Amino acid sequence: MTLHTDLVERIRLRLEESFVGIGADVAELPPPDLAELVNELTLQESASVLAMLPPARAAAVLDQPTLRRRGAIVEELDPGRSAPLLEALSADQRADVLRQLDDITRRRLLPMLTPEVRTEAEALLRYPPRTAGGIMTTEFVRLRPDMMVRDALKQVRAVARERESIYACYVLDPGSGGLLGAISLRDLVMAELTQPVTEVMRKKPVTVNALDDQEVVAARIAKYNLLAVPVLEADGRLVGFVTVDDVIDVMIEEGTEDALKMGAIEAGAGDEPYTATPFWRLIRKRAGWLLVLFVSEMLTATAMGRFEEEIARAVVLALFVPLIISSGGNSGSQAASLIIRALAVGELGIRDWWRVMRREILAGLVLGGTLGLVGFLRITAWSLVSPDAYGPHWPLVALTVFVSLIGVVLWGTLAGSMLPILLKRVGMDPAVSSAPFVATLVDVTGIVIYFEVAAFVLRGTLL
Amino acid sequence: MTLHTDLVERIRLRLEESFVGIGADVAELPPPDLAELVNELTLQESASVLAMLPPARAAAVLDQPTLRRRGAIVEELDPGRSAPLLEALSADQRADVLRQLDDITRRRLLPMLTPEVRTEAEALLRYPPRTAGGIMTTEFVRLRPDMMVRDALKQVRAVARERESIYACYVLDPGSGGLLGAISLRDLVMAELTQPVTEVMRKKPVTVNALDDQEVVAARIAKYNLLAVPVLEADGRLVGFVTVDDVIDVMIEEGTEDALKMGAIEAGAGDEPYTATPFWRLIRKRAGWLLVLFVSEMLTATAMGRFEEEIARAVVLALFVPLIISSGGNSGSQAASLIIRALAVGELGIRDWWRVMRREILAGLVLGGTLGLVGFLRITAWSLVSPDAYGPHWPLVALTVFVSLIGVVLWGTLAGSMLPILLKRVGMDPAVSSAPFVATLVDVTGIVIYFEVAAFVLRGTLL
Repeated sequence: MTLHTDLVERIRLRLEESFVGIGADVAELPPPDLAELVNELTLQESASVLAMLPPARAAAVLDQPTLRRRGAIVEELDPGRSAPLLEALSADQRADVLRQLDDITRRRLLPMLTPEVRTEAEALLRYPPRTAGGIMTTEFVRLRPDMMVRDALKQVRAVARERESIYACYVLDPGSGGLLGAISLRDLVMAELTQPVTEVMRKKPVTVNALDDQEVVAARIAKYNLLAVPVLEADGRLVGFVTVDDVIDVMIEEGTEDALKMGAIEAGAGDEPYTATPFWRLIRKRAGWLLVLFVSEMLTATAMGRFEEEIARAVVLALFVPLIISSGGNSGSQAASLIIRALAVGELGIRDWWRVMRREILAGLVLGGTLGLVGFLRITAWSLVSPDAYGPHWPLVALTVFVSLIGVVLWGTLAGSMLPILLKRVGMDPAVSSAPFVATLVDVTGIVIYFEVAAFVLRGTLL
Repeated sequence: MTLHTDLVERIRLRLEESFVGIGADVAELPPPDLAELVNELTLQESASVLAMLPPARAAAVLDQPTLRRRGAIVEELDPGRSAPLLEALSADQRADVLRQLDDITRRRLLPMLTPEVRTEAEALLRYPPRTAGGIMTTEFVRLRPDMMVRDALKQVRAVARERESIYACYVLDPGSGGLLGAISLRDLVMAELTQPVTEVMRKKPVTVNALDDQEVVAARIAKYNLLAVPVLEADGRLVGFVTVDDVIDVMIEEGTEDALKMGAIEAGAGDEPYTATPFWRLIRKRAGWLLVLFVSEMLTATAMGRFEEEIARAVVLALFVPLIISSGGNSGSQAASLIIRALAVGELGIRDWWRVMRREILAGLVLGGTLGLVGFLRITAWSLVSPDAYGPHWPLVALTVFVSLIGVVLWGTLAGSMLPILLKRVGMDPAVSSAPFVATLVDVTGIVIYFEVAAFVLRGTLL
């Protein structure tokens, strides 16, 4: 953040000179701002700053999901310093940091945690990342069905002293550990102290399964306006919950990924910000897909090669190649964007493919016809103004462009709308079918359509 | 949603036949699911369903921000039925619905509300949509600085009986209405009943201004992990607050908009889902930008026309035009996606343009050089295998492709990275600089670069 530039410089100076005063420099900053500032520093500088902050403050910074390179920073720290920091994190953030560590550091650090924290961390690490279990926290308030509201409030006060947030209290079956109901703090405050909790709790609350994808969790919390959603194991045991602010982090992360994928850039969990990514890593992330697209696009040269003779006889045909193929690419990108988004927000499913296809065939014909007409009129106008522009057979050239545009736009629209559904069907992320991919797919076909139409329309005249 | 298809059909039948039993059909559905179901119906059907539900349930459905066409549905209803529904909504949703009504319906409905609700609604309508004031609710718990925790809890209980959620209590200066501090329900539960609220409250809470853009509000709530953020007027008076679940709705809305803009589709507030948009409206949304792109892309024909003689003399040149220009478009789309996202999440500002430019010049040279090398090797390999493929001067053709790719990719990268910053500078949404736009911009220049390089390299041989 440009806002922090002065402070970043001052901290760099401190680190070079005397190592003192950093705590005072940043004493006023809330942890989220401090995390943002640390994101601007190199890895070594970040570790030095965390080592020099008072432990509670260092832990509060490390607890921020917006802090980048958390694993790498912890690896830089002396284990004697990093173990107590990990101990002080919230359970979900601790699991996230541990997951980012290399095996050696993780195996060295885990035994340094208290047995209770270690068991909890190891339990959370067993869930795959990017699932409900992988992002949940386990620090919920457990209530027994025989409690009264008074006991519940006492329990909440006991737990809240240690923990930052108390979003939800859950009433568990003492035998099976199954979820009987959920009680919000609001419900507790509103109820009479002598009411049994079973009378106040909401039965059948909305839940998620531990192995549900994090996007499913986000969608459910958003749809039902929840502050937290309980996470159940396959056998119905309550194992944790995911809060609304975890979900916001998930949405930002997934938003970034989708945005990058749509630009044909490799994206994954824990992506670094543009400015903090080292130059060569940025190149690697971009070169891979760029090369794949380039090599696929080489087929256009092969396709054009097949029509070399036609081009030699009627050079005028070559002039419209970029216009024709880009129209296919653009209409394909539009269709892909619409369908990717509709799939992402759950408006469409794989089973709707035929409904989409019917619609897009019509849309492709209408849009292609419109562009074709504009193209036809443009060639006509030019030819009437300067008769040499496209030669004596310009009406046939104009007709070729008209018919080709209908075909190419129709094909682009179909490819753009069906590709995301197809990708989803085979278990891939539809967002991969980005504008560049659709365009590349459509370019080769567009060339073939165009020259085949030309061969048919212009046979005996230009060709 | 495909899940509801059977239920939708059943409801359609009920509407045709007897108008009874709808309440029972959907009695089990929570309001968010019911809203989703209503989204599948026509406007008339939706209004009929709302009219037939028990009033409290109809209001709960109308209160869902995920319900589409809320204004239009209310316009369909009889005012005698819609006024009590509006009355029962939460303040922020009521303002949102009123904003969507046509002037006549709004002017007819407002006087039918109770004076208190009407005053509040009119106050909220004064704020522009998509600002903090435009999405806030005014139903916060007001505390006086002379209160004790016991009084505060009493106040909360009194208010919570009427209202769905009590996210935040605010201590106000009785004279100025200025915000002295914020107290969460957790703070109140943890404190002693006899403590003064001024001792428990958080001083200097994070706030937003009423005219801040809703994206600013979302960013702040996300960054500081807040459940709610208080909204201040320019003079410091507290006028309302925005909750975390409003923010999730904002993020979904803005996510949809950005996704559509990146595909060059017109997007705006209240966009309809793909399946619910009437065919011709969908065409209009797509045809506009498609035509703009098409007309701009016509310049490629003009550019190619300038080099018609060169193509006639060396048809082989035409074969590589799609490959060259698409490489510029793809590298430009990558750069644009990276920069648009970095601008959106606040990692980059307008002032960073020079830093970005330096980086992208280097990136463009490296990526262009890589693609160029692959292109060079491909032409070499083909020519060694079948010497006729690109004629006797194939080394010069390969050199032309190599140099052009460096130039075109460099230009694409620069255009793609600078365009979003430029758009932001002039107050437009950077997301408009989508892949199709960048590609169109780069295509014409790419053609010129390619043929100029060819003219230079091939002079005296092919040309």
